[in-house]
Amino acid sequence: MKLSDKVINRLTLYHNILVGYIEKKISYISSPQIAALLNVDASQVRKDLKLLNNDGICKVGYPVEELKKSIEKFLGFIKKKDAFIVGAGNLGMALAKYDNFELYGFNIIALFDNDPLKVGLSTNNKQVFHISKLENLAQRLRVQIAILTVPRQFAQQVADFLVKSGIKYIWNFSPCVIEVSEGVHVWNENLIGNFLHFTIDHGD
Amino acid sequence: MKLSDKVINRLTLYHNILVGYIEKKISYISSPQIAALLNVDASQVRKDLKLLNNDGICKVGYPVEELKKSIEKFLGFIKKKDAFIVGAGNLGMALAKYDNFELYGFNIIALFDNDPLKVGLSTNNKQVFHISKLENLAQRLRVQIAILTVPRQFAQQVADFLVKSGIKYIWNFSPCVIEVSEGVHVWNENLIGNFLHFTIDHGD
Repeated sequence: MKLSDKVINRLTLYHNILVGYIEKKISYISSPQIAALLNVDASQVRKDLKLLNNDGICKVGYPVEELKKSIEKFLGFIKKKDAFIVGAGNLGMALAKYDNFELYGFNIIALFDNDPLKVGLSTNNKQVFHISKLENLAQRLRVQIAILTVPRQFAQQVADFLVKSGIKYIWNFSPCVIEVSEGVHVWNENLIGNFLHFTIDHGD
Repeated sequence: MKLSDKVINRLTLYHNILVGYIEKKISYISSPQIAALLNVDASQVRKDLKLLNNDGICKVGYPVEELKKSIEKFLGFIKKKDAFIVGAGNLGMALAKYDNFELYGFNIIALFDNDPLKVGLSTNNKQVFHISKLENLAQRLRVQIAILTVPRQFAQQVADFLVKSGIKYIWNFSPCVIEVSEGVHVWNENLIGNFLHFTIDHGD
């Protein structure tokens, strides 16, 4: 089954809601409740949740804990995905701290930078290593995912180095499109694009 | 005309590519070149660029500078959108520095935090103010957009405060879904959701 990124995106948002409900010790949630929070149709929510083989209980809703676990299982959160962060500036540091990554199976192993002032720092139990150590660590720890947060002008050159080091998935936060060889996958994170459609008013 | 977020997303990625071409002083770009960089169909690229009323020149391609300007005009980058960043942690600071925001018409006016150690700091010529100053500044400067980068557990309470202060658009980076009153728009940034579909392998 091929999941669209829209479905995956909604499922992760449902997951966020469920985490909040668990904190508030609420046991059941209904599709209209989820729908209202996200401004989507309740029928859409029910359709998405059907994918998980989870049925709501009539007039009670879905059991929050179970639903959360089904989403985690379905989206493969349980499978650990080890990743490096390359670029230990503010964005790299913010992502290293992002409390939500581990919930999704993302395990940030370490950060890398070429700035001697940053090497040796650590945040959230993750250390910053000199970039020259990356290839060796990637091979030894079999890390295939790199989150790229270097400034735009260095992105391509660092991406080339990552590919040479055996990285197969690059999550690119630099606002430029990088070129990689076949077999390497790049996801160009486009923060502004996600938000723009929402402040744009083109009329009809 | 209603633009899908997919189209907007692709247009902003084309824009990124064009900025790179201008830096490299390349004057023309073809749809297959753009398509190859983004791993999409050239016919899709041509269809998107048709929206801008921009025609390529046969065997030469699109003039890079003109195409870049058309995208900026089309997506309303030229219209300045003033915004506040609420939460001056690593993520807030990273976004305040993100060199791409101004290109898109986003003008970050200031940051806000309740931590006395952060108040008074500045980055990229943007100052951190105490959160208590937000309402007054939002009214005086007519700022309607807030980028929310506070920790999860404070997100709802800060969002309530933003709504009370007259903010109409909240770009929420906290990994939780916030509730707002009618007339206020929330875009839940879901970093992990964007990336997940790409490392997920559900088989067929």
